[in-house]
Amino acid sequence: MTTIREKKKAPEFGLTHKKTENFSEWYQQLVIKSELLEYYDIKGCFIMRPWSYYIWNVVKESFTRDITRMGVDECYFPLLVTKNALEKEANHIENFAPELAWITKCGENDVEPVAIRPTSEAVMYPYFKKWLFSHRDLPLKLNQWCNVLRWEVKSTLPFIRGREFLWQEGHTAYYEKEGAEQEVLQILDLYEKIYTDLLAVPVIKGRKTENEKFGGAEYTTTIEAFIPVSGKAVQAATSHFLGKNFSKMYDVKIVDRCNNEEYVYQNSWGLTTRCIGIAVMLHSDDIGLVLPPRVSKFQLVIVPCGSLNGDVCAYIARIKKEVEDRGVRVFLDDRKNVLSGFKFNHWELKGVPLRMEIGMNDYNNNEVVVVTRMNRCKKRVSSTNIADYVVNELNTIHDQMYENAKNEQMKRMRTANSWEHFKCELSCNNLIMIPFCGRIECEEVIKEETTVRKNGCVEQQGAKSLCVPFENNERKSLQCIKCGEACDRYTLFGRSY
Amino acid sequence: MTTIREKKKAPEFGLTHKKTENFSEWYQQLVIKSELLEYYDIKGCFIMRPWSYYIWNVVKESFTRDITRMGVDECYFPLLVTKNALEKEANHIENFAPELAWITKCGENDVEPVAIRPTSEAVMYPYFKKWLFSHRDLPLKLNQWCNVLRWEVKSTLPFIRGREFLWQEGHTAYYEKEGAEQEVLQILDLYEKIYTDLLAVPVIKGRKTENEKFGGAEYTTTIEAFIPVSGKAVQAATSHFLGKNFSKMYDVKIVDRCNNEEYVYQNSWGLTTRCIGIAVMLHSDDIGLVLPPRVSKFQLVIVPCGSLNGDVCAYIARIKKEVEDRGVRVFLDDRKNVLSGFKFNHWELKGVPLRMEIGMNDYNNNEVVVVTRMNRCKKRVSSTNIADYVVNELNTIHDQMYENAKNEQMKRMRTANSWEHFKCELSCNNLIMIPFCGRIECEEVIKEETTVRKNGCVEQQGAKSLCVPFENNERKSLQCIKCGEACDRYTLFGRSY
Repeated sequence: MTTIREKKKAPEFGLTHKKTENFSEWYQQLVIKSELLEYYDIKGCFIMRPWSYYIWNVVKESFTRDITRMGVDECYFPLLVTKNALEKEANHIENFAPELAWITKCGENDVEPVAIRPTSEAVMYPYFKKWLFSHRDLPLKLNQWCNVLRWEVKSTLPFIRGREFLWQEGHTAYYEKEGAEQEVLQILDLYEKIYTDLLAVPVIKGRKTENEKFGGAEYTTTIEAFIPVSGKAVQAATSHFLGKNFSKMYDVKIVDRCNNEEYVYQNSWGLTTRCIGIAVMLHSDDIGLVLPPRVSKFQLVIVPCGSLNGDVCAYIARIKKEVEDRGVRVFLDDRKNVLSGFKFNHWELKGVPLRMEIGMNDYNNNEVVVVTRMNRCKKRVSSTNIADYVVNELNTIHDQMYENAKNEQMKRMRTANSWEHFKCELSCNNLIMIPFCGRIECEEVIKEETTVRKNGCVEQQGAKSLCVPFENNERKSLQCIKCGEACDRYTLFGRSY
Repeated sequence: MTTIREKKKAPEFGLTHKKTENFSEWYQQLVIKSELLEYYDIKGCFIMRPWSYYIWNVVKESFTRDITRMGVDECYFPLLVTKNALEKEANHIENFAPELAWITKCGENDVEPVAIRPTSEAVMYPYFKKWLFSHRDLPLKLNQWCNVLRWEVKSTLPFIRGREFLWQEGHTAYYEKEGAEQEVLQILDLYEKIYTDLLAVPVIKGRKTENEKFGGAEYTTTIEAFIPVSGKAVQAATSHFLGKNFSKMYDVKIVDRCNNEEYVYQNSWGLTTRCIGIAVMLHSDDIGLVLPPRVSKFQLVIVPCGSLNGDVCAYIARIKKEVEDRGVRVFLDDRKNVLSGFKFNHWELKGVPLRMEIGMNDYNNNEVVVVTRMNRCKKRVSSTNIADYVVNELNTIHDQMYENAKNEQMKRMRTANSWEHFKCELSCNNLIMIPFCGRIECEEVIKEETTVRKNGCVEQQGAKSLCVPFENNERKSLQCIKCGEACDRYTLFGRSY
């Protein structure tokens, strides 16, 4: 017989780490305790629980709607890829080779090794070759939502860096360069929209340097987010113009109007579940998650308080219905065996944007109490037009969350015109715009010289170029702050996840 | 310089095999030429092109809506599973061990082998143990849409049997047996609904025999479809009552109201992309696909015919808009460089339910020509209330496709009360209800004795039990036609994919 003491017990409630004191511990504790995610018994693999998967579904639906309008079709290509297909594009495979997971055995038998896709260029493009004959078959626009695997040796981090992760990958082919290049930016705009309009995260748009571009791409465009507390940037999504690099390697050509054979122009673009991690890191606090209203599974939680008679219950039901009829996602937490205080803590930990407390007094006064998770501000509100109030409040919260994050980011954007100034700003965990030549070798030197070591071990990774921002970056006569070579743009540098 | 002759050419149009003459070749040619699917350079892996992925998306959306209403949450568990987790449930692993794909190498390094999930019981249930504490945490209802891998040694077939396939897998836990068992049947009903209401496929519901149930389950319920031309049945979807088998192995227990520890009851249930293959096999003909209207990406294709002036174009645009406004998915094929006849063939090969031909004459008569793909029946229809006509026609087509398939199936349902009669019906490619004892050993004998061999090689697999149908199967005093043991139900047998 097991005694009560031996029986399994629920883990301790609430966060014990603070965001500003120990960001890394705080984050890892937060994602587990808020039930966004669970660590898995294989390193770098995580379980997405319903609370986070809901966010991903909102992102999926929104992005799918947008790209469907652009004529992109959904499809599915296999998980496995042969060595032969992978090795066709040398620049591409070079980047992924150390991270490839190989299946070598099936059941008891050895098999010809096949890899798990780290991304699907090598999976898809041999079939583009097979399907495309004429310029009239173009543009070809495909997208798939799938899992990919990269056997990361670097330290993994929930949502931000995992071995397996979920994403969408778009792969398109064009006859004309112009159309392809337009699409690259159009997609980047859609990515920005997901961050700003759904996740309340401000991003910086720009182009990657030679060193940081996607292997095999002509160029890579990116949106970069910034986590002020850790002073680190994160690549939030990328859209690549592949030019004819892949089509030449995979022999993807078509016959044009003049009956000439031409290689096609190609793009690829991807957004991952990392977006959830970025939003969580940015908005949450020492109490728990703070979810942006548009992606939160519940936008409003109603907690009945004190002893209630039938009239109050009807009052609550009426309010719930009014708000739901306006499309708000409401949860009524009427659990009998749980104290109100526990419920408040529970939903604050889980980051629900609005809480409504309703008791006898509120009913008698035709009022409700509304608490905003973001700032924990508490208000008495008349229940007349309560649905208008809630809808309005949710939009206001979104805007305020975005504004706050944007202000924090702006405060940390610096410009440095000398190497010394750059190092100083970097040590203050800032983002820094610098005149930079763009050369791979020079970037490697900057990275190396800003790497912090202790007893031979890397204590802090060196600074990376994040992007050459599109905005406020007109051509100037500048000199690279490291090598002195002439350049015409500022490049954004910082430490990064 | 390449000469024109050497340039790549589009493959030959149209089907060259006939459904009744060479079903297997016909099917494999059909799925490729209609652009549902492409063979991949790894055996048993297939590319789902947009034309089939659209069908999958319709199924996904419909089923997700239904299970969300039942309180099922979406989530995502990892692709990889450790040997240790897999080996906990002996009956379960026994079935999957020969089909497991193992990753043993990452980059250049050997790693502790991990398998790709063949299904996710072993992936998920260790975490159910971690998350569940009290009976108040139940029921737990999770579902994920994902890919799984089973290294099939049997011959693979597009959609029907692949090494990697897409599916949804639902995994739930209950405190009370009754609720769990209710859910098993509720889900089976939803699966049936997908087949009948979306794919126009009739299915037979029942319970699997001991020999055919899911490894580790208490029992398995199933829906079975039948392909008359090949005389083979296909398992269309399954819903398993796992009882406490897995919860005991994975130690998933909770504290109940009386403070006792209890193992939970569990279910798992799955539907795969196989449903697309079944619908394609059943409905299509020698000309090409015949898609059920509710899952076809385009439900109506409009082909303008002859030379058109502006008035006719406006007429076509008006009709298109009217029909679209009623929610019909319309494609206007106004390609200039392609003959109408080619367009007709193209969309017939791709199985679009309705085609509308509109030319000068039609415009002058305020008419359109409508051709139904299913029976290639051609009608002149007034353009007044054309949207009503189309909406109505699409529903009629669905009903007719279902009726036709149901009739074909019923015609092939036999009952045999002796072994000789059974063998005779089997050789006529029928489905056969027989009194059967249900014992594993007896089923193995039936399978063995009906296997057709030639020079020692299996030419035709033996008969399998498909299910003990729920309907028209009241308790009777019967004797197994093979071993003579007493039994009280008929069991459906047949050859099967």
